[in-house]
Amino acid sequence: MKFTTYLRDGAPRLALVDGSDLIDLNDANAKTPSDLRLALKAGVDLQAAGAAALKDKARRVPLGSVTLAPLVPEPGKIVCLGLNYYDHAKEGGREKPDYPWFFFRAASSLVAHGEPGLLPLVSSKFDYEAELAVVIGKTVPRHTKQADALQYVFGYSCFNDMSVRDYQKRTPQWTIGKNFDATGGFGPHLVTADELAPGATGLRIRSLLNGKVMQDANTDDMIFSVAETIALLADVLTLEPGDVIVMGTPAGVGQARTPPVWMKAGDTIVIDIEKVGALSNPIVAEAA
Amino acid sequence: MKFTTYLRDGAPRLALVDGSDLIDLNDANAKTPSDLRLALKAGVDLQAAGAAALKDKARRVPLGSVTLAPLVPEPGKIVCLGLNYYDHAKEGGREKPDYPWFFFRAASSLVAHGEPGLLPLVSSKFDYEAELAVVIGKTVPRHTKQADALQYVFGYSCFNDMSVRDYQKRTPQWTIGKNFDATGGFGPHLVTADELAPGATGLRIRSLLNGKVMQDANTDDMIFSVAETIALLADVLTLEPGDVIVMGTPAGVGQARTPPVWMKAGDTIVIDIEKVGALSNPIVAEAA
Repeated sequence: MKFTTYLRDGAPRLALVDGSDLIDLNDANAKTPSDLRLALKAGVDLQAAGAAALKDKARRVPLGSVTLAPLVPEPGKIVCLGLNYYDHAKEGGREKPDYPWFFFRAASSLVAHGEPGLLPLVSSKFDYEAELAVVIGKTVPRHTKQADALQYVFGYSCFNDMSVRDYQKRTPQWTIGKNFDATGGFGPHLVTADELAPGATGLRIRSLLNGKVMQDANTDDMIFSVAETIALLADVLTLEPGDVIVMGTPAGVGQARTPPVWMKAGDTIVIDIEKVGALSNPIVAEAA
Repeated sequence: MKFTTYLRDGAPRLALVDGSDLIDLNDANAKTPSDLRLALKAGVDLQAAGAAALKDKARRVPLGSVTLAPLVPEPGKIVCLGLNYYDHAKEGGREKPDYPWFFFRAASSLVAHGEPGLLPLVSSKFDYEAELAVVIGKTVPRHTKQADALQYVFGYSCFNDMSVRDYQKRTPQWTIGKNFDATGGFGPHLVTADELAPGATGLRIRSLLNGKVMQDANTDDMIFSVAETIALLADVLTLEPGDVIVMGTPAGVGQARTPPVWMKAGDTIVIDIEKVGALSNPIVAEAA
């Protein structure tokens, strides 16, 4: 089953995706919160809500007629992994990490499918990163073990961890280069975990810049699996419904190329993950 | 004027602090949201709401009778600065930075004044850090200049950036060691910006472990001022109402001592900032 978040009167609304249509879940049942995070937090059975909404032929709206919002508009936290594919660590001159390089994104950095990724005024070193996003469905008890971790995953989506490389490297802390406004592409929709292999393994993951394949790998190549990552995080903090984990990127980023490839205004960047979806963002220069 | 956030029926509520009393602002005027972030976001004139509430003698509750919540329970983002006092950078063997070492905390790491700071099961290297917290009152336009930055600050509070040092140093990214549950002490209240010197300069800032002074410095010693920090952030992202900036810690942390001093269960750690307040947290071991 697929869910998405779209804008109505400027506010995000939760919807089921069925083929090329969407069905607003709050319209279909007023008891269903209109925000994915709040619906998960309230313990709503979204699979049941989705199944009920599917029967409601009258409420269908063509997907192409709406503007999407970031899949989870205001996650409690967005935990990102650096260097989680060995070939990407290697292309950056790094060793294989023995613990994930965690950093956070803020909600203010998110941008929906179809909306512009913003080339910053203060930098031209703007790079793409194809990543698998994990959306937590239920609170993960502290110290949950790897073997028990996947039951807390609601589903998966695509993420473009667009990175401003000079800011990322201004100090050893990457956070600021990962948090420019409108640089965290997130969507277009979520695929529930039951539709994929456990931990979303075995999926081809690619980025395409103006149609040209720039990254082409498989989620099997991740160093830390989704389950292991959740277990490592559970030693530290409480993962809550609507929290997002962004699983790192494979080789082929722009900064590691000779010469480097930077995204420019007018480009289109697509993150395509097999069975999950294709997230597309035009690149637009920030207004001066 | 002072504001705080306390718990009623398990939910955070916004209140004015007057001496040793508090007055619930939503009780005083049902139009005032019961959450500091939402009140700021809605553009409520909290100084006026506070002044009106002050006249309401009947609604006063002794501060000592309530349980506080983190000052902003769910900030959109919490931006922290590392190495923002030169003597602290030096005690860690670092140079004076020419750009702030930014990292983020998540709301799940916050803990209120009076509530236990949690000594993690997985580490004993638990350290304190006295810091000034800045609460943003109005959206900061992108590329705001330093000279214009302070008008967006609503007020100041105390923060204890409790750090799990071995996790902080497991990789070059500090984020994970700064985001254990219940390690970000935040409170006890906010003092509005008009009651302090611009940018909260000239204030003595200390930490006291079991009554013994461990850090003793002045906010004048910050390398990046509040105004400069806001301007640097405005080049990157949108600071929104209720966002928090945590301004870094001076010398005297436990890890830099010989031998190192780690916080243990049964300890009490206090962050005291002149004219701002005193934030106290007992240290309690996480349940096995």
